[in-house]
Amino acid sequence: MFDWIKSAIDRDPALRGGIRPLEILLYPGMWALVFHRVAHPLFELGLPFIPRLLSQVARLLTGIEIHPGAKIGKRFFIDHGYGVVIGETAEVGDDVMIYHDVTLGAIGWWKENLKKQRHPTVGNRVVIGAGAKILGPVKIGNDAKIGVLAVVVNDVPAKTVVAGSLGKILKNKRR
Amino acid sequence: MFDWIKSAIDRDPALRGGIRPLEILLYPGMWALVFHRVAHPLFELGLPFIPRLLSQVARLLTGIEIHPGAKIGKRFFIDHGYGVVIGETAEVGDDVMIYHDVTLGAIGWWKENLKKQRHPTVGNRVVIGAGAKILGPVKIGNDAKIGVLAVVVNDVPAKTVVAGSLGKILKNKRR
Amino acid sequence: MFDWIKSAIDRDPALRGGIRPLEILLYPGMWALVFHRVAHPLFELGLPFIPRLLSQVARLLTGIEIHPGAKIGKRFFIDHGYGVVIGETAEVGDDVMIYHDVTLGAIGWWKENLKKQRHPTVGNRVVIGAGAKILGPVKIGNDAKIGVLAVVVNDVPAKTVVAGSLGKILKNKRR
Repeated sequence: MFDWIKSAIDRDPALRGGIRPLEILLYPGMWALVFHRVAHPLFELGLPFIPRLLSQVARLLTGIEIHPGAKIGKRFFIDHGYGVVIGETAEVGDDVMIYHDVTLGAIGWWKENLKKQRHPTVGNRVVIGAGAKILGPVKIGNDAKIGVLAVVVNDVPAKTVVAGSLGKILKNKRR
Repeated sequence: MFDWIKSAIDRDPALRGGIRPLEILLYPGMWALVFHRVAHPLFELGLPFIPRLLSQVARLLTGIEIHPGAKIGKRFFIDHGYGVVIGETAEVGDDVMIYHDVTLGAIGWWKENLKKQRHPTVGNRVVIGAGAKILGPVKIGNDAKIGVLAVVVNDVPAKTVVAGSLGKILKNKRR
Repeated sequence: MFDWIKSAIDRDPALRGGIRPLEILLYPGMWALVFHRVAHPLFELGLPFIPRLLSQVARLLTGIEIHPGAKIGKRFFIDHGYGVVIGETAEVGDDVMIYHDVTLGAIGWWKENLKKQRHPTVGNRVVIGAGAKILGPVKIGNDAKIGVLAVVVNDVPAKTVVAGSLGKILKNKRR
């Protein structure tokens, strides 16, 4: 956990200097992860109901919904966090950073095969921008960066940058 | 309500098997709907303040904001739910499923005519992906599917699929 | 504050008529702003921890995260509000209106220079649609309108309209 705190301070400029590292206690991403670290082993043991209850309590407190079945690597850092959804069969590597409103989701219940993985596998050191939606059993390679609001439904090679489209300026000035 | 629970189990793979259907009690979408089923008739009766209060309590508990004026059909299923906003004059058909962060909203206060409908009308069996924004008094036909992060400001015919643009891979590997 | 309430009633059609203005008390955007008006001066005085604590309490209650360092102008109106994130060095002018899930954020910790401004400067009377993400130390000119789900990483001139791309209808009717 100390390891995790150190990585957060490295990554968030708002945390640096003086007593500011203490503010890490206020980070919703930290609390969501603490709940998940308890809920996931209970889920793996096959305990019913309780893991999901822990997950939903964490969601209520933080706005971050991590299914207890998801496998999450070391030093996972969620910044801001509201609206984050991580599905049951998602796998996240080490040193991954995601922003608020990121979804690691499934393609949709009408296409799913329960026996297979339904959610993404995310490599190490991946960064995923705010609002990006990664859907289905795709693989995101190590060191990839997924841009803000990007939609990803195919595999992304290692060290690649994926970007959503930018807003366009309309010439006519109206109001 | 039993009907609703059955439809949820049909649609969410994470709910299937053994004691897992009980987890439906943890679904924020269910609680938001329960609050709305109480708030909407009170709103229709013209009761002031209380319906909106109920709606805001539901929002605090679930992250889902349904205006008490909205008309919602049977077996409406909201998955995950954070950030969902459904406006006052929206109408939603039966067996509709929406994901988190969907907005059924208005075009903007500076264009609005208070006498007319300001929000979308959504047909039966429509599915709306995470983050999609449907704005203005448009009609979404029966069985349409609206993709993740799609922006919709025009009518959508029945049985049509609407998709937002995918993120693009940038060739240059940087960092 | 009375000023603020009047501006809200002007802008939100759901508030007009009879006792409905009282419903303003239920607006999360109002409470987030009240917390910020307390937290920001304490932050400016250099008080540690408490301003961030206030900001996180406001986030828990409203789903709106305004860093206590952000400079916010008069009559700032946040509608719905879930998922709004406003960064430490953001500056917002007067009479600005934003919808839920708007981010005024930074480009990413790996590019940042702590001495410079990292977040947007937003002019007066700007309107920012739901889900739009404005990133980096860009300037948004007076009276600009940023459309729903638009991604903005460059300056936007005054009175300009910026729009994200619309969802496209796929011809093949599937299911």
